[in-house]
Amino acid sequence: MTEPLNFEGWVCPMPLRDHPNVIMGHGGGGKLSAELVEHLFLPAFKNETLAHLGDSAVLPVASGRLAFSTDSYVVRPLFFPGGNIGDLAVNGTVNDIAMSGGQPLYLSTGFIIEEGMPLDQLAAIVDTMAAAASAAGVSLVTGDTKVVDKGHGDGVYINTSGFGLIPDGVDINPANARPGDVVIVSGEIGTHGIATMSVREGLEFETVIETDSAPLNGLVAEMLNVSQNIHVLRDPTRGGVASSLNEIAKASQVGIVLQERKLPVAQAVHSACELLGMDPIYVANEGKLIAIVPPDIAEPMLTCMQQHPLGRQAVIIGQVTDQHPGIVVSKTGIGGTRVVDMQIGEQLPRIC
Amino acid sequence: MTEPLNFEGWVCPMPLRDHPNVIMGHGGGGKLSAELVEHLFLPAFKNETLAHLGDSAVLPVASGRLAFSTDSYVVRPLFFPGGNIGDLAVNGTVNDIAMSGGQPLYLSTGFIIEEGMPLDQLAAIVDTMAAAASAAGVSLVTGDTKVVDKGHGDGVYINTSGFGLIPDGVDINPANARPGDVVIVSGEIGTHGIATMSVREGLEFETVIETDSAPLNGLVAEMLNVSQNIHVLRDPTRGGVASSLNEIAKASQVGIVLQERKLPVAQAVHSACELLGMDPIYVANEGKLIAIVPPDIAEPMLTCMQQHPLGRQAVIIGQVTDQHPGIVVSKTGIGGTRVVDMQIGEQLPRIC
Repeated sequence: MTEPLNFEGWVCPMPLRDHPNVIMGHGGGGKLSAELVEHLFLPAFKNETLAHLGDSAVLPVASGRLAFSTDSYVVRPLFFPGGNIGDLAVNGTVNDIAMSGGQPLYLSTGFIIEEGMPLDQLAAIVDTMAAAASAAGVSLVTGDTKVVDKGHGDGVYINTSGFGLIPDGVDINPANARPGDVVIVSGEIGTHGIATMSVREGLEFETVIETDSAPLNGLVAEMLNVSQNIHVLRDPTRGGVASSLNEIAKASQVGIVLQERKLPVAQAVHSACELLGMDPIYVANEGKLIAIVPPDIAEPMLTCMQQHPLGRQAVIIGQVTDQHPGIVVSKTGIGGTRVVDMQIGEQLPRIC
Repeated sequence: MTEPLNFEGWVCPMPLRDHPNVIMGHGGGGKLSAELVEHLFLPAFKNETLAHLGDSAVLPVASGRLAFSTDSYVVRPLFFPGGNIGDLAVNGTVNDIAMSGGQPLYLSTGFIIEEGMPLDQLAAIVDTMAAAASAAGVSLVTGDTKVVDKGHGDGVYINTSGFGLIPDGVDINPANARPGDVVIVSGEIGTHGIATMSVREGLEFETVIETDSAPLNGLVAEMLNVSQNIHVLRDPTRGGVASSLNEIAKASQVGIVLQERKLPVAQAVHSACELLGMDPIYVANEGKLIAIVPPDIAEPMLTCMQQHPLGRQAVIIGQVTDQHPGIVVSKTGIGGTRVVDMQIGEQLPRIC
């Protein structure tokens, strides 16, 4: 987990070799900026639209409803078991679009690079972004690069924004949960938060815990094939499953009852959480979703999810109720009930 | 220019009063994050779509071509004569969309806030963004807030992304300049760069030089009413008019000949540039555009621009030629010619 980063395979393109680390001029809009775009970003993200380098990308769309989303990524460290800030930034926005039922089409990328950032690290991140975009079936069509002075950043911050088309008839929204609905989670929770936290704190566990960062749009497309009548989808990132469920309970003015024993948590994550004094229900995920569906489609939906690589461990974890609107409660293993509140601040800073 | 910032008119909403400065928890996805959204962002940006607080905004669009653009803003200082990072961030992306002929519809905003940022300053910036969006006729429909530890940011960095619909028949692109085309600039150049630079360096001039930050979509709409046959539009931000013209010359594989005496430069900007050893042709603008149009529509286009508040001082500054493709030259006042190259790095760091 604490292995040195190895970017030795990367060969710096000739025009960039004078500056192995990013300097202020790379963000100045002059020749150095142009070289960075031409020799680093364009070869990685290769697509016709981006190559035009206009002030904006020009894209054909069909009429309908677009899902439009943005997220900035400030995760620390930049590289962690199973991924880096690059795939996190692509998958995160892909997932936000998918949570409205949208099929993501196009992403933008905005880099805020700290002066002194090694170019080979930036190249590794950019390559990871390109691979993640390809895996998710989206194109990175427009971008922007800024450089800030040393001591005013942290390597690189990345914003991705993007949009996708929502199929007709789909209405997926945090306010749509109804009493009687069934709550499903797509797999084991808390992995991403523990993966980044462990490397940041220099913790060594018997098993290396890798981020679960993954694009969920393929899974959502399969689920919509089963039924368009999905009420709510949410990817429980910052604040974990607890925060997402609280937001849904509040937006829909319903109560949610969890069966605590049903929450899937990997043994390694469970142990790490005990050690760190954390509860996995509050820990960030980057490749999981919560689905809230009417009871009549719960079983076929679960079966569909379990047949997808990103939903193999999907499980029903609770139910929506008309009791205690706005409140999430958890039935504990020993028959008690506790309120699962939102946290005040955060357990884990800069997790995404 | 060095007056203290005065936000005394701002009354901190009750739930935010415990923390007059941003703390890490405001970016943690818990209660503090929710309070910031509910009591600061939502009241300022008020619109139905944003209020849904889904993972993505759901927006109706007609079929056609979208112009999609992104920019991160890292300007220092955050407040400068005539504006702040907030209106810069809105106008900048509005203008990038307009430079493809698109009429901007929706923007996203991503905040990266440094721990310790005073909430009243953030509120002032957010209010300015809301006013700028309203003036440009766009809606801020989705957003994201991250907080980074003190010493890893600089107050606030803002990303805006957005899109707009391009009218049928419009094809405006940096690669479309043709020999014989006429080059028009919409007004006096170099103002924004000098406005931010002067306050950063603590320079005092006789006249306060204010940023020219403005939304250009209204001007572009008027211009398209005159003729859809505009070949190129570009807002000369970082790197100034010189960099934009070089990019166009390269993309279109044409030469551009400027009449140096025609370049409109305010006397105060001219004096400041002399003092700072800078050339206004390389200095950033945030409310100007370069238009490249066929000669037969140049005069009516110029007249139209001069009738718009943001184009009153529009003037023809040069012509496109089939000589020296990829090269921009300037005819100096005394009859000579000089090559106007791109700069290597930058004159002015963190200007936008």
